[in-house]
Amino acid sequence: MSRGLITLITDFGLSDHFVGVMKGVIKTINPAVEIVDVCHDIPPHDIARAALMLSDSYRYFPPDTIHVVVVDPGVGSTREPVAVRAMEHVFVGPDNGVFTYIYEEAPEYRACGIRNRELMLRDVSSTFHGRDIFSPVAAHISKGLDLSELGPEIKKVAKLEVQRPLRRGDEIVGRVSYIDGFGNVVTNIPGEMIEGEARIEICGAVLVGVKSSYADVRRGEMLAIIGGSGYLEISANRARASDELRITDQARSGVEVVVKLLK
Amino acid sequence: MSRGLITLITDFGLSDHFVGVMKGVIKTINPAVEIVDVCHDIPPHDIARAALMLSDSYRYFPPDTIHVVVVDPGVGSTREPVAVRAMEHVFVGPDNGVFTYIYEEAPEYRACGIRNRELMLRDVSSTFHGRDIFSPVAAHISKGLDLSELGPEIKKVAKLEVQRPLRRGDEIVGRVSYIDGFGNVVTNIPGEMIEGEARIEICGAVLVGVKSSYADVRRGEMLAIIGGSGYLEISANRARASDELRITDQARSGVEVVVKLLK
Amino acid sequence: MSRGLITLITDFGLSDHFVGVMKGVIKTINPAVEIVDVCHDIPPHDIARAALMLSDSYRYFPPDTIHVVVVDPGVGSTREPVAVRAMEHVFVGPDNGVFTYIYEEAPEYRACGIRNRELMLRDVSSTFHGRDIFSPVAAHISKGLDLSELGPEIKKVAKLEVQRPLRRGDEIVGRVSYIDGFGNVVTNIPGEMIEGEARIEICGAVLVGVKSSYADVRRGEMLAIIGGSGYLEISANRARASDELRITDQARSGVEVVVKLLK
Repeated sequence: MSRGLITLITDFGLSDHFVGVMKGVIKTINPAVEIVDVCHDIPPHDIARAALMLSDSYRYFPPDTIHVVVVDPGVGSTREPVAVRAMEHVFVGPDNGVFTYIYEEAPEYRACGIRNRELMLRDVSSTFHGRDIFSPVAAHISKGLDLSELGPEIKKVAKLEVQRPLRRGDEIVGRVSYIDGFGNVVTNIPGEMIEGEARIEICGAVLVGVKSSYADVRRGEMLAIIGGSGYLEISANRARASDELRITDQARSGVEVVVKLLK
Repeated sequence: MSRGLITLITDFGLSDHFVGVMKGVIKTINPAVEIVDVCHDIPPHDIARAALMLSDSYRYFPPDTIHVVVVDPGVGSTREPVAVRAMEHVFVGPDNGVFTYIYEEAPEYRACGIRNRELMLRDVSSTFHGRDIFSPVAAHISKGLDLSELGPEIKKVAKLEVQRPLRRGDEIVGRVSYIDGFGNVVTNIPGEMIEGEARIEICGAVLVGVKSSYADVRRGEMLAIIGGSGYLEISANRARASDELRITDQARSGVEVVVKLLK
Repeated sequence: MSRGLITLITDFGLSDHFVGVMKGVIKTINPAVEIVDVCHDIPPHDIARAALMLSDSYRYFPPDTIHVVVVDPGVGSTREPVAVRAMEHVFVGPDNGVFTYIYEEAPEYRACGIRNRELMLRDVSSTFHGRDIFSPVAAHISKGLDLSELGPEIKKVAKLEVQRPLRRGDEIVGRVSYIDGFGNVVTNIPGEMIEGEARIEICGAVLVGVKSSYADVRRGEMLAIIGGSGYLEISANRARASDELRITDQARSGVEVVVKLLK
């Protein structure tokens, strides 16, 4: 029934032809496969944001989906292109840490370097591997190509250092992962870490209790809530918590979130 | 021939994974269905803008298209998720007024509350019903599910108050509905209300006559024209009328448009 | 295997329903055809940018793809809608210069004016031919309609004046074509013109040598490189060269690039 599915996460934006051209390359090799955009507005070169977004999204796609991630500041340098099979999905992109959470979550995985030139476009540029390497390789995989045809297995894959929240007695100290489009401040603290009553402190603001709906506070008021990806978020009812807290996406990584468990 | 079509209107923006994840959920349930983005840049929480856009767009899709609208500031509160069959189309979204124009236009419609938990994702969050409720329900409907399987019929659906233009003698007093991406100022005055010559006043500017093409005025000059959705628009030839008139999308609703019919 | 492919390049942006409605019209006429967005963020009315993007993208799509380009400041005036068959692809849009590079590249082409009203929507507005003319015509072509059914052949098509770089002895004088989303400054100088060592001057900055990868310079540093479309680009490693050079997309056309061949 399925004709195969390829998803795309890039930092290419939508004001150029880059994403469209990747789709043209894929469709030329496998006209039957379907392509779903997950996001092209990853902040330029922000590997950590792409890695987290992949972790938040791949699990909602059917098994055998091929996820292509091109956030690739080292394009044309020595970093290797890689394809990974893990948890019944396939992941294609540069070996620069974008698959960090996949490696962490998967009980086992197989990563292969992409070296077979016959699976790439004839002319491989040094600036646009999304078009010349990752798209054609993903298209060939969607037609049934085994990962072993790509190149040798890679034993030591690149991983980012993942910042996990620290637990100190009844205190959890976390970080801001990102600001979403609604101005929700998404932290790295999993909802399960917070049992019972809690007091949350961030940028001088104090919030008491984790609410179960935005409507639990007045319009414009801030609240703490467990967001759609399962992490603690600081939000505001019909307003932007990030504006209220004066956190920008650029300055997000330095911001600490302290949860005091009260119960 | 058709494999089924689902359209999406949301205020999720494109800088997060929200829209991509909705598509993954849909494709997991019905791999054959096609998904078309109508718009994801509805101003956050702007139910009125979403309602009007749905009215301007649904009619251009084939019968049996399923239109999912997720502009949902009350997510997780008491507002009910709803599915509506009207005018040979299906509409899925929160019962918060996004379907106002559908109810107004349809000679008859059937609205059902969405309560059947088996048609939702296993874990339903309180912040992301686009993923957990509306996408899976739309996918199930695209596979042939009857609306009666969702939940009980709703008799009293939520409607916004629609601002219609007023006619006073030879004067029509209307409002600005929205500013489009080209800076066209779209009013709520249907083109058919304006017969013969007219003088249009808005923000102190006076325009005489309704033109039939942007090229009827000099480059940079403003004009009144009947736009693609059939409403009176204030535009400028290769320029932004909204800048000229200093109307922002935020301040749009207070702006009055007065049309004086001349002969 | 292929179900037919239509690509879209417009200046409609993504904050309105314009693009979605075009897709609805296409799907109503040919439910089987697939639609790929190349770009909808062409700067408003920027025909030259659309023409160049089409040239950079069409070749990556399979033969018989139909490319619809709607950057159309003269909509509703006397400029003619046109469909062109060239180099095994089909191009549909206004006859205003958007197909300039196609005409230049093609050994031969056939252009037909679009006059057959039966292939358009019943009501043709004067402001939205993307919906009323170009989409339905593209959909009909995707079902096998011959271009001769559209209207008479056009002998004198509209072309923009293409700015080619000048060669003066060992100097090449070029222009900035556009700034891409990463801040790369893309010139009109083809990579093949630069043999051997070179010194590049732009906005007072001097760069020596054409590098083969962004990583050849330190982080934040500028470099000259042959970009993905084959033209000389001024870039910066993980930074925006356009910011460094203080070139905006609006002011780009006046900027000169001088390459001195050294060898």
